[in-house]
Amino acid sequence: MKNAIEKIKALDLKNYGHDFLLTWNKTPDELEATLLIAEILRERHRLGKPNLVFDSGLAVSIFRDNSTRTRFSFASAANALGLAVSDMDEEKSQVSHGETVRETANMISFMTRVIGIRDDMYLGEGHSYMKEVSSAVQSGFEEGILHNRPGLINLQCDIDHPTQSMSDLAMLKSYFGSLDNLKGKKIAMSWAYSPSYGKPLSVPQGIIGLLTRYGMDVTLAHPEGYNLIPEVVKLADKQAQLSGGSLNTTNSMDQAFTDADIVYPKSWAPFHVMEERTSLLKRGDQPGLKDLEQSCLANNAKFTDWECTEEKMQLTRDGKSLYMHCLPADITGVSCEQGEVSASVFDRYRKDTYMEASYKPFIIAAMMFLTGLKDPLLALDVLEN
Amino acid sequence: MKNAIEKIKALDLKNYGHDFLLTWNKTPDELEATLLIAEILRERHRLGKPNLVFDSGLAVSIFRDNSTRTRFSFASAANALGLAVSDMDEEKSQVSHGETVRETANMISFMTRVIGIRDDMYLGEGHSYMKEVSSAVQSGFEEGILHNRPGLINLQCDIDHPTQSMSDLAMLKSYFGSLDNLKGKKIAMSWAYSPSYGKPLSVPQGIIGLLTRYGMDVTLAHPEGYNLIPEVVKLADKQAQLSGGSLNTTNSMDQAFTDADIVYPKSWAPFHVMEERTSLLKRGDQPGLKDLEQSCLANNAKFTDWECTEEKMQLTRDGKSLYMHCLPADITGVSCEQGEVSASVFDRYRKDTYMEASYKPFIIAAMMFLTGLKDPLLALDVLEN
Amino acid sequence: MKNAIEKIKALDLKNYGHDFLLTWNKTPDELEATLLIAEILRERHRLGKPNLVFDSGLAVSIFRDNSTRTRFSFASAANALGLAVSDMDEEKSQVSHGETVRETANMISFMTRVIGIRDDMYLGEGHSYMKEVSSAVQSGFEEGILHNRPGLINLQCDIDHPTQSMSDLAMLKSYFGSLDNLKGKKIAMSWAYSPSYGKPLSVPQGIIGLLTRYGMDVTLAHPEGYNLIPEVVKLADKQAQLSGGSLNTTNSMDQAFTDADIVYPKSWAPFHVMEERTSLLKRGDQPGLKDLEQSCLANNAKFTDWECTEEKMQLTRDGKSLYMHCLPADITGVSCEQGEVSASVFDRYRKDTYMEASYKPFIIAAMMFLTGLKDPLLALDVLEN
Repeated sequence: MKNAIEKIKALDLKNYGHDFLLTWNKTPDELEATLLIAEILRERHRLGKPNLVFDSGLAVSIFRDNSTRTRFSFASAANALGLAVSDMDEEKSQVSHGETVRETANMISFMTRVIGIRDDMYLGEGHSYMKEVSSAVQSGFEEGILHNRPGLINLQCDIDHPTQSMSDLAMLKSYFGSLDNLKGKKIAMSWAYSPSYGKPLSVPQGIIGLLTRYGMDVTLAHPEGYNLIPEVVKLADKQAQLSGGSLNTTNSMDQAFTDADIVYPKSWAPFHVMEERTSLLKRGDQPGLKDLEQSCLANNAKFTDWECTEEKMQLTRDGKSLYMHCLPADITGVSCEQGEVSASVFDRYRKDTYMEASYKPFIIAAMMFLTGLKDPLLALDVLEN
Repeated sequence: MKNAIEKIKALDLKNYGHDFLLTWNKTPDELEATLLIAEILRERHRLGKPNLVFDSGLAVSIFRDNSTRTRFSFASAANALGLAVSDMDEEKSQVSHGETVRETANMISFMTRVIGIRDDMYLGEGHSYMKEVSSAVQSGFEEGILHNRPGLINLQCDIDHPTQSMSDLAMLKSYFGSLDNLKGKKIAMSWAYSPSYGKPLSVPQGIIGLLTRYGMDVTLAHPEGYNLIPEVVKLADKQAQLSGGSLNTTNSMDQAFTDADIVYPKSWAPFHVMEERTSLLKRGDQPGLKDLEQSCLANNAKFTDWECTEEKMQLTRDGKSLYMHCLPADITGVSCEQGEVSASVFDRYRKDTYMEASYKPFIIAAMMFLTGLKDPLLALDVLEN
Repeated sequence: MKNAIEKIKALDLKNYGHDFLLTWNKTPDELEATLLIAEILRERHRLGKPNLVFDSGLAVSIFRDNSTRTRFSFASAANALGLAVSDMDEEKSQVSHGETVRETANMISFMTRVIGIRDDMYLGEGHSYMKEVSSAVQSGFEEGILHNRPGLINLQCDIDHPTQSMSDLAMLKSYFGSLDNLKGKKIAMSWAYSPSYGKPLSVPQGIIGLLTRYGMDVTLAHPEGYNLIPEVVKLADKQAQLSGGSLNTTNSMDQAFTDADIVYPKSWAPFHVMEERTSLLKRGDQPGLKDLEQSCLANNAKFTDWECTEEKMQLTRDGKSLYMHCLPADITGVSCEQGEVSASVFDRYRKDTYMEASYKPFIIAAMMFLTGLKDPLLALDVLEN
């Protein structure tokens, strides 16, 4: 751990008051610090050592969509650092846009150190809402209304899912030994069939938006029409060029899997469907939503062969690619009749996917640590000595 | 802070087991101690110093009406002092009156230090319910069932809203420099137009029931018929006479604003309407409630000129009166078409209203401090040394 | 307390990772240690001494049925030991059986020390679900996914209600002076009339399944047909023989009360009705459920004389039997027209029933202490010195 602390000291940290909303707006040093702090907190937890760096304070969570895993990861992280979770249940209050966001953001923040938000339902909304909250607490802090500037953590928006992608990166760093070792490794971020529809784009976008920064060969595969937000793909492509990696897109799952070191087969809805769905949802057009769902499911059904089977796994490097998933996966014959992954593949990698998930509370804790503490280096020293 | 602690030591405190239900049942010393402790806790928080005076224990909240601000203020206060919030969700349990209140009050209190209750929906109910809970935990404590006597804090009832009025008093003390400086200052507690109906009376009642004790010239203004509970007005009048201040009532907003040092324009429902509404609610008379709402809104609509505009603000002392509001305000052209206050007035005082709100978690913490600790003076000494 | 600690040191503790699901699967030493720790924690709480043995960590609660008392007891216990409660609200997530239970159990457990579950609605389900969760976290711990092995605490299942029966045992130990003094004491665990139906069997089963181990004369009384799960009665009978006590069953409340030292009159649904209800609930057969309810209530109504009246109390030893109830009781003329107990009997023993309930948070804390800590003896020493 001393080694990790030395590494952190060499990094350029500008975290207090710097929200964690999109990984691509964070510097390489900020990302590395997040990984290193997560590793330190994880190792200390394994050894039974406390990670209490706040004496008190609230960690406010705002979930605009259901969640079990992220909810518990957020609660675990807050508790580990000494914060108490206070959930903002919007049914018991009223949060909307405009003036009210500014006011509510301040009213819940008088003793708040971090605010975690999940808002992934509407394209064009989640990230905007987070920026509104961020600007509200920033000005509340500058005006002296708030004694502390609560740091925001994106627990999944319409664009990115940084607590997931950073956990995945932590898993990959551990699995392959270092970030450097990721260079040249091929990851297949592939669409996969699911009997449900309307799954958010933020996981695949988060993956290509993060891993292209580490010199990896990222292959994005999906059936024709299942595009992601074009700006994110463009940004990932630019990042890949800068990092000496590559971003390839294909309409063939097989091609993506061929010689892959890592596969990440996961369903999502096409970008244009999410756009249409968003406008139907806003208009409250129930029949329209029903029609859209049916036409989507019908379209999905053409691609039931996009399943991560043993045969497909045989295409990967030595047939031994790492299988990743954000969970829960749609497992053929287990959680659904036909899904993203065959039961035997999932079962072989079940432990790995649990391990992948186990990084999330520590990644969130590291984000809280960096954005909520005025002097994270001092806090590290106090913890260790 | 040393100064504040010395002042507290000179006061006559009898707080442990003394609930904070109505400000007018508290002695001047108890009120002053509450303000002083709130100031100490606030300043310590600003400096990043911990306020942990309980090693553990629950702060139980019972919200019989929606709330965001008070909910978070209560959670913040509890957390700052070292208590964990446990919300009693009545949908997941059953609390009614009679034997059950006594039993439930004890069952939730075995390790509880404070109980905060909001119950402002029905005239004649909220305060009675709090007294029932209070007497239940008092006898539980006397019988040895409870090791501690949880202190009750009124988070808004049908009669008073002491966490609001005490926060407002803390704001005024800070704004004008001292409680003494409030003497002779004119405050206009004025009804204002709102497009909604059924707003509780507890804010204006709380204001006139508290500020008349500090030698202020309190002017209560409302359209004919929009009376408050007569007993509270009577009590406020008596207090004003004792304190060397005055309580004037008028049916003219202009008259109230003229030369006012502070204005507090806020909508409420007429007392007789609240009485009628209470009996309709009890009978579950939906058509009756609908009729009442419509006739009320129609009546309200006669008074849309009861709006705090720039013109009205010009009537106040040097045109520079402080504008106060418990938030959220109905802002014309922002949160509604026509409301309590014009957008330009609100915007000019937005920061002040946020500051006003920022006192609430510290006021609640001070109430917890005084009612939940057996020896608050010792706790202060421990904090400071 | 030193005495109690010495006693605990002499016991054979194998608690870490040993769930508390059924009292009859725990050794006498484990039960005694639970009682002793509860007594120590209770006495320390009474003296205002902290019981913080965890520096951080979650106590996850899963309530598949409504609860106030147990919910607050669980929250109190967790808080007293230094854990934060995180409630798993199944409406906001999805937990079902099979693969999903294993996954969810691990996902909520990365920083979790104890998991409390109430699942008492379906015969044949609650205990099975708990065993599924237990085996999931056990393998997660063994695979290195979880750094700690969260201990499970049964907060009421279809078979047993150990936090209730152990609290009752703590009450009896205190009331009669020692566990030894319970030998030969007669307890009447009797059915009683209630105007509701479908009350779980776990309380009477828990009582006969625990108290038959302490040499007591346990009499189980109910109208013909109101049987408990046959396996539990058989097990209790075997235990009674081993402990030198007895288990008698009768269809006469009077006979049960005669010369009883303790009476525990409480309603429950017949075993065969619960079986039928379970299969109707599973099929979602609403008309069938309605029919069943009506026929049950009609059958219940034949036994309104199964009420704990002053006359019945006169039959007990010197007319001075202790009256016990898990609360809330159906009190004639108070909470219902005709119920389990007359108002005058309940009122005379009200304080005793509250005291009985007051043991629950400490019993739960003791269970958390023993199952969640790797070295409970060391923790005790640290607390005391």
